[in-house]
Amino acid sequence: MSASPSSEDPPRRRRGRRAGGADTRAGLLAAARAEFAERGFDGATVRRIAERAGVDPAMVNHWFGGKEALFTATLDIPLDPAVIRNEVLPGDPDEIGRRIVRRFLRIWDTAGNGGAMAVLLRSVTTHDVAARMLREFVTRALLRPVVERVAPDRHSERGAMVASQLIGLAMIRYVLRLEPLASAPEDEVVEAIAPTVQRYLTGNLGSTNPDS
Amino acid sequence: MSASPSSEDPPRRRRGRRAGGADTRAGLLAAARAEFAERGFDGATVRRIAERAGVDPAMVNHWFGGKEALFTATLDIPLDPAVIRNEVLPGDPDEIGRRIVRRFLRIWDTAGNGGAMAVLLRSVTTHDVAARMLREFVTRALLRPVVERVAPDRHSERGAMVASQLIGLAMIRYVLRLEPLASAPEDEVVEAIAPTVQRYLTGNLGSTNPDS
Repeated sequence: MSASPSSEDPPRRRRGRRAGGADTRAGLLAAARAEFAERGFDGATVRRIAERAGVDPAMVNHWFGGKEALFTATLDIPLDPAVIRNEVLPGDPDEIGRRIVRRFLRIWDTAGNGGAMAVLLRSVTTHDVAARMLREFVTRALLRPVVERVAPDRHSERGAMVASQLIGLAMIRYVLRLEPLASAPEDEVVEAIAPTVQRYLTGNLGSTNPDS
Repeated sequence: MSASPSSEDPPRRRRGRRAGGADTRAGLLAAARAEFAERGFDGATVRRIAERAGVDPAMVNHWFGGKEALFTATLDIPLDPAVIRNEVLPGDPDEIGRRIVRRFLRIWDTAGNGGAMAVLLRSVTTHDVAARMLREFVTRALLRPVVERVAPDRHSERGAMVASQLIGLAMIRYVLRLEPLASAPEDEVVEAIAPTVQRYLTGNLGSTNPDS
């Protein structure tokens, strides 16, 4: 393969080994950003990212734990899909809507009123590459594993519905800052929004197309 | 008052009268864009817009029918609040969620897969002035008149909830184009989303704060 060089690419040494340490980590991050931007989350491979960085693919697992976590690290937001799934999935299935909304709010609130997340959401609406990357990441790493475990049917439709409510909540609360939702306490938002997420995941979507 | 001149301002003639016609209309639109950008939807006044355009304030009503419609015209999207309210409000109050979602989808679909609306939504996330203007417009001209007529209580909270679901739907279906929601038929989307909008408007928000 011939990876096109980018300004973010670290100097490459074919088959060479780095001394390791922060150097390797930074090199992998830069290589990952370039690879994700070029091929999207789905098309990117750990092997190619390692090759771009001039390190062994095992270094990706060593430093980041895998492709998902590496992608999250390039986004620079506090969002580890495995951690989130472990917090959201266990427990009463009828309460998963509540757990999802609460976790979602905490991710944003931790980032300081949206912070890095709001920046990401803005970039998503203006850059097609960012939109594609986030769409694939949210779908494959966050939504699908949850939806497939709890939803009875129509997984991708339910996933998209959940995404529509959550992204709209983020837009209103953190980007447009529409009151009173912008300043509403976490519990109040959870109570109001959770039943929607719960219905999208496990309830009746009332459609003319009962199975897709 | 001393309006700051902008490149979009037409040449002004104090107290002068235009010959009328397309000239006046275009002059009012340019003056309105400058005024809305400077003061937001709420702060802008018809009198000041007319003054900027060098025409009589009655011309605003003559050409546009009022401030709301003038603002809509500056946005260049097919969205007349009065028309929308007249289509959404009459009928069974328990079906208003369905009417709102259907009308919302048609506005976007008419604009050719989001078209101008998607551009507007993108600009909202990146420009604070656009965000403030659209937020005020959506709240005051679209949401509030509907919510105040149908919701039993907590009007601004219910309005913000409805906005969160609708803007999220637009983001997923028209901006991020996440399947299967991006290509789902109108009826299917209405069936799935309408109960959410209905509950936000007239249902139980389940909050610890029963009246606000």
